[in-house]
Amino acid sequence: MKVLIAGVDGYLGWPLALVLAKRGHQVGGIDAYFRRDWVAEMGSVSGTPIERAAVRLQAFYDHYNVALDWRKGDLTDYNTVLNFVKSFRPDAIVHLGEMPSAPYSMIDAEHAIYTHKNNLIGTLNILYAMKEAAPDAHLLKLGTMGEYGTPNIDIPEGFFEIEYRGRKDKLPFPRQAGSWYHQTKVHDTNNITMACKIWGMRSTDIMQGVVFGTHIDEMSDDERLLTRFDYDQCFGTAINRFCAQAVIDHPLTIYGKGNQKRGFLSLKDSMQCLTLALENPPEKGEYRVFNQFEEVYSITDLANFVKEAGNGLDLNVKIENYQNPRVESENHHYNPDHQHLLDLGYKPTRDIKGEIASSIQMLIKYADRIRPRSFVLVPDIRWSGERHKVGTIADD
Amino acid sequence: MKVLIAGVDGYLGWPLALVLAKRGHQVGGIDAYFRRDWVAEMGSVSGTPIERAAVRLQAFYDHYNVALDWRKGDLTDYNTVLNFVKSFRPDAIVHLGEMPSAPYSMIDAEHAIYTHKNNLIGTLNILYAMKEAAPDAHLLKLGTMGEYGTPNIDIPEGFFEIEYRGRKDKLPFPRQAGSWYHQTKVHDTNNITMACKIWGMRSTDIMQGVVFGTHIDEMSDDERLLTRFDYDQCFGTAINRFCAQAVIDHPLTIYGKGNQKRGFLSLKDSMQCLTLALENPPEKGEYRVFNQFEEVYSITDLANFVKEAGNGLDLNVKIENYQNPRVESENHHYNPDHQHLLDLGYKPTRDIKGEIASSIQMLIKYADRIRPRSFVLVPDIRWSGERHKVGTIADD
Repeated sequence: MKVLIAGVDGYLGWPLALVLAKRGHQVGGIDAYFRRDWVAEMGSVSGTPIERAAVRLQAFYDHYNVALDWRKGDLTDYNTVLNFVKSFRPDAIVHLGEMPSAPYSMIDAEHAIYTHKNNLIGTLNILYAMKEAAPDAHLLKLGTMGEYGTPNIDIPEGFFEIEYRGRKDKLPFPRQAGSWYHQTKVHDTNNITMACKIWGMRSTDIMQGVVFGTHIDEMSDDERLLTRFDYDQCFGTAINRFCAQAVIDHPLTIYGKGNQKRGFLSLKDSMQCLTLALENPPEKGEYRVFNQFEEVYSITDLANFVKEAGNGLDLNVKIENYQNPRVESENHHYNPDHQHLLDLGYKPTRDIKGEIASSIQMLIKYADRIRPRSFVLVPDIRWSGERHKVGTIADD
Repeated sequence: MKVLIAGVDGYLGWPLALVLAKRGHQVGGIDAYFRRDWVAEMGSVSGTPIERAAVRLQAFYDHYNVALDWRKGDLTDYNTVLNFVKSFRPDAIVHLGEMPSAPYSMIDAEHAIYTHKNNLIGTLNILYAMKEAAPDAHLLKLGTMGEYGTPNIDIPEGFFEIEYRGRKDKLPFPRQAGSWYHQTKVHDTNNITMACKIWGMRSTDIMQGVVFGTHIDEMSDDERLLTRFDYDQCFGTAINRFCAQAVIDHPLTIYGKGNQKRGFLSLKDSMQCLTLALENPPEKGEYRVFNQFEEVYSITDLANFVKEAGNGLDLNVKIENYQNPRVESENHHYNPDHQHLLDLGYKPTRDIKGEIASSIQMLIKYADRIRPRSFVLVPDIRWSGERHKVGTIADD
């Protein structure tokens, strides 16, 4: 299968290129390196040493004996997208090329608008380019479980059958996103749903939980094949940020009481799921939604897992509750379905503690990349629009 | 009350300025005249002769003895919006400043993206400017009944209480928009809902039906006070387009079988509703939705009303069914609630036939503005992305 990865330079895009190449697929990728810029804007850098494209491509060739058709390009430029689709002729496009940070989108009007432009226009360009040049290809789009928010009812996979005033319909499940970033993913979901309906496109919309981890087997022990690993307030997500904090003796930063529940999965399992979705594409005209995560945990649960794993590696891990810079429910019902990927054969690893331990072990090696930037670990971007560091809850 | 109207040069914005001034409110307005450009791009022009700003402002002063604080400016420029909000200090902002045409948004990738940029960024800028400089003001935002699509269940006003798997919640009603334009209104709805939640803003989101008509009392018989009236395939909506067709002996262009049902209201009633919403603002932090229309009709019903009214005025009105350039359900359930405005005191005119007759009467006077542009009456913009004129269904 010919797979074009938008956002191939990113945390998920790069390992997916390796996984697909190993499985014999032909891989192309496009990236504008914006993620590197955004993280730099936060005063941070990948915790793992990541190479620039030329070195990554050489390593890719050394291991998989094929070239990766890699282009530098901005998805918000229609001709860039159209030209690549026309020349590469993909069977599937995996769209991982969005600005993925809630806090980054909440900094100010400029960042809110930038996030909307980057994410919505990129997706619209991909939709139009596919319509024009690859109408039968499969669009595998990365959304987020955060699109649903935290309703007081169970969360189905995208759609639900309901009865209302004596009539029935199957409708899109209401989305209640809690940041501009999450809103852009909702907007994309709505746009892609419509494109499938009116143009007969096929798409899988992945409502992904929070991904964590540093390594997959396909990287072997070649450091040139590592993927990025972020730990700053914007691009470092819960478990990863905790792991980075653990290795430099920084307290794990729980926001608020830590009762917020989310779905999580390892990088390895994310790759397994995306591959399953690609190798089992939807029908022509079908729009399907997969809730992609392994298990639901509270943030406090996760901090405790990291603490336990860290202490087992002779680190001295402490946990602190900080003022929550976000506006979000801290006590809520959370019971999302996640059956569709299991039906396709997904075998969850179910070893979150082992995965955390091996991430910490790898990060210990790179602690000197993280330690000088510890100021990026405590958030100052608040949902109120103000910007100053949150204190611990004890300080309140 | 000080009311700032975004889109003050438009079909609704201009009459609203007159109505509010007459009721003693202080009115400011901003517009970039894009609507005039878009209609020109369609090869068309307002059926009514509309004046440029300088003449409109003089007429406004002549009738209401106050100046309208009118600025030329683009809502997608944040500083333009912020500066106006800071200096005008509105109690309410009425946001009518969006690109309002479904077919225009469906022309191609460029128009789809333009619509997203214009509509979403304009709204985000207004939200941020209000947060910064008028946090207690009321945002009255024009959405559309089209956001809901045509689900097989009744349509509540924005939210519904549902039970699902034994648990209950009040959730946003699922939106299923059928064009990029309608999608941008859904995206705005989601964004405004979030702004109210996280920033404590207050907003009324108007899901408006299709507005028709040419005149309100506040225009008196001063031609300088007329509002625009569009009849082209993009900016002419159902009844208005039919009225324009009637006066030049062009068949009324029903798309498909004409069983599509929509909510409609007269220009007069739209003004009444917007004024009621302004004079009865929501609480701080409240996000409320009004379904704003008078009655539900099928497109065929409306064509028959126009035919009847036209024949009563010695016109010879014919109706033709054309291939539907859109992808939409032509037979569907449609039963939307519309109680919130009635609760505030809305008195529907309930004289759709009289309103249609007086529109036709006025348009007869301007038939020579419409006749030379009859080529804009039959659509060529198709939801498929192709662009060629639709034929009548008999031609199929």
